[in-house]
Amino acid sequence: MTVNYKTYFDSLKEQHLDELKELLTIPSISALSVHKPDIAKAASWIADALTRAGLEHVKIHQTEGHPIIYADHLHAPGQPTVLIYGHYDVQPVDPLNLWDTPPFEPSIRDGKLYARGATDDKGQMFLHIKAIEAILKEEGTLPVNVKFVIEGEEEISSPHLPGFLDQHQEELSTDVILISDTSLFEKGRPAISTGLRGLCSLEVSVHTANTDLHSGTFGGGVPNALHAIVSLLASLHDDQGRIAVEGFYKGVPDLTQEMHEEFEKQQFNEESLRQDLSLDSLYGEEGYSFVERTGARPTLELNGVYGGFQGEGSKTVIPKEAHAKITCRLVGHQDPQDMLDKIEAHLCAHLQAGAKLEVKQMERANAFIIDPSNPYLQKAADAYETVYGTRALFTKDGGSIPIVETFTRVLSAPVVMMGFGLPDENLHAPNEHFNLENFDLGLLTIVEYLKSL
Amino acid sequence: MTVNYKTYFDSLKEQHLDELKELLTIPSISALSVHKPDIAKAASWIADALTRAGLEHVKIHQTEGHPIIYADHLHAPGQPTVLIYGHYDVQPVDPLNLWDTPPFEPSIRDGKLYARGATDDKGQMFLHIKAIEAILKEEGTLPVNVKFVIEGEEEISSPHLPGFLDQHQEELSTDVILISDTSLFEKGRPAISTGLRGLCSLEVSVHTANTDLHSGTFGGGVPNALHAIVSLLASLHDDQGRIAVEGFYKGVPDLTQEMHEEFEKQQFNEESLRQDLSLDSLYGEEGYSFVERTGARPTLELNGVYGGFQGEGSKTVIPKEAHAKITCRLVGHQDPQDMLDKIEAHLCAHLQAGAKLEVKQMERANAFIIDPSNPYLQKAADAYETVYGTRALFTKDGGSIPIVETFTRVLSAPVVMMGFGLPDENLHAPNEHFNLENFDLGLLTIVEYLKSL
Repeated sequence: MTVNYKTYFDSLKEQHLDELKELLTIPSISALSVHKPDIAKAASWIADALTRAGLEHVKIHQTEGHPIIYADHLHAPGQPTVLIYGHYDVQPVDPLNLWDTPPFEPSIRDGKLYARGATDDKGQMFLHIKAIEAILKEEGTLPVNVKFVIEGEEEISSPHLPGFLDQHQEELSTDVILISDTSLFEKGRPAISTGLRGLCSLEVSVHTANTDLHSGTFGGGVPNALHAIVSLLASLHDDQGRIAVEGFYKGVPDLTQEMHEEFEKQQFNEESLRQDLSLDSLYGEEGYSFVERTGARPTLELNGVYGGFQGEGSKTVIPKEAHAKITCRLVGHQDPQDMLDKIEAHLCAHLQAGAKLEVKQMERANAFIIDPSNPYLQKAADAYETVYGTRALFTKDGGSIPIVETFTRVLSAPVVMMGFGLPDENLHAPNEHFNLENFDLGLLTIVEYLKSL
Repeated sequence: MTVNYKTYFDSLKEQHLDELKELLTIPSISALSVHKPDIAKAASWIADALTRAGLEHVKIHQTEGHPIIYADHLHAPGQPTVLIYGHYDVQPVDPLNLWDTPPFEPSIRDGKLYARGATDDKGQMFLHIKAIEAILKEEGTLPVNVKFVIEGEEEISSPHLPGFLDQHQEELSTDVILISDTSLFEKGRPAISTGLRGLCSLEVSVHTANTDLHSGTFGGGVPNALHAIVSLLASLHDDQGRIAVEGFYKGVPDLTQEMHEEFEKQQFNEESLRQDLSLDSLYGEEGYSFVERTGARPTLELNGVYGGFQGEGSKTVIPKEAHAKITCRLVGHQDPQDMLDKIEAHLCAHLQAGAKLEVKQMERANAFIIDPSNPYLQKAADAYETVYGTRALFTKDGGSIPIVETFTRVLSAPVVMMGFGLPDENLHAPNEHFNLENFDLGLLTIVEYLKSL
């Protein structure tokens, strides 16, 4: 760099942190309608910040939910376009009593900025605004064309973003989508996610008699909704931890030797995880390591099961109904709708005589996968290496960020997930924080990346 | 009979019903400590009624729980002794809003007396006091020796009765135990139970990690307490509805052709039950009818299962714990403690890797069985026949009344279960009632029986 951006950011650090703290004081919790005015306030704060940074065409798009902010700077003809995505909404804060300092009173301790949204995603999104501002201030122009899309519904599954992308497909056309809403692999070891699992979810109910029955008078002679549901749910896996639903593995890519070696590179410590969780042993599909099970294999998890008597002591009842909540993580080309249909068919086929089944299909999201040899990813790894001194690992994550797959599909462009959080920063939990070391290095990495394209 | 007891009881019917109503106004709910004074009031009411009836040595025995009332009349040397058992405590009354008239304001409608305890067991127990009173008033003496044991903890599993029987074994020695706390088979068809199932119960918990985990980050790589518990619970039965616990059927008598024929005599209408319960089909162990399944076969029923998220919508959680409540009904010589140990061993053996098991053994009660050819039962059937015009059926009931087996074992005497309720009188439910037809016939049947011994 001809400009010394480190000196620039160091000199403005206090001012930048004060600005971020101002944003963090706004309780823009998207899940709670009482915070609707705070959402509006945060959206308008973002629009102002984008304007101040020198971006153009700043617009707050109203949706049926919370607004989406657009801005751009398109003065680099012949150069690639980068669409930067982030979100200004945050998770709820309960239980409040577990926070060491109030969630919307940002506080810096031991080099960490504590507040709801500090790392997810206000803090990370803010880095992009300040990086752009820096280049514009120092060099008068940007090395690439830039578009911003900042939404306010990420924590409630982005119900209006796909529609917005569809509607503004041309206006949003881009060469690459850049998102900072993930984490380094660990302190000092940057990572770029090249895979996110998809998702489908369903609710299952089993009904038997029209009333609860006495287990003495009727026991052994009538169907019991709990028996029916436990055998139904148990039938979903085989003894080797594999999912027993016929056709479930359709679209799941085989784990190649190359992929296996990429996973090995992470040197993930399974023994240390086992100890942290106080488990006798980890558990999963035979023949795969933990990072492979969570990164490259699909799952079918029971998130809740309930029926009958849950109080103290005993009640001699044969319950008339029982319920289960199920989510699947999907990989490769597994089609969420197809998976839901296959699970439903399996449940119908395995239902015990005398019981009735009710299935409610819920969420659907495709898996995301990108080839790490993509030049936009390689340049991101270069940028990390320049700033952190360590080349980024290409990881596959177990979680799902449905909008990543939506972005890449609707805009036909690769997504670079350039995260600056750390895995232990209490996302979605009390005492969320952001390590300021990555605040500093993040700004530099983004500048480095944009200039390298 | 030389005395016309029908005329006697008819002339005093209003007075008897008024007395019973007085007892029924006392809310002697044994499960709720706030009703402790009502329990004491009911106990003292019973003691007074026994004294007024002409019984002697009336004593309220205090226990660590609710009192047991004893009384006797031992002036028939050379004649058999009959010990009459009953209980003055009642079930709770929730949900109150489903009662047509308040549970403790007795009300007669359509020949039925409505109140909590009307049939279970204040009403039935009251018949014995009035029958004894009648004979003493009309004949000056009793044809047999009589002992009364009336307790106040039947609805909370009689925790102090077994100790009382042990302690007073000699004082309570008897030739037969007479209990009216069951039902006719149906209106006009009396029944004497010759079998009650035993009971054992347990609570099962499965624990996995020390915290709930995110189903994206960890899903597929760690044990899920719900998966572990559903496969554990499903393993308890095989595909034919049989209990798969090794050795569970030890002590279960084979169903003989004779028993099968006795069950056939009941002419139980399975299709009508199926329709009443809105079931597609009944369900149970293959090769047995409904009355055989509930009367002569053991069960293992799940009464409650719960773990993970139960709220609205979905939560992507891998729960760290899951719970189940189980009761078994036992028959023949199945030993409740042995069964609990066998179930626990089965659960240990079938537990998924990575999960921890916690088993809490709860209740234990032996099954009760008596040979219908026993002369005390045959005479009871004769008495029913004389009064009802129909000989009593000998039935086997699916429910458990643990004290019946305790009585017969501790006092080495047969138990005659001479019930006067009807199966649809809403025991333990709102609008409990007692058909007054059986109030009248019950008084006569008891007198007839005592005089026949």
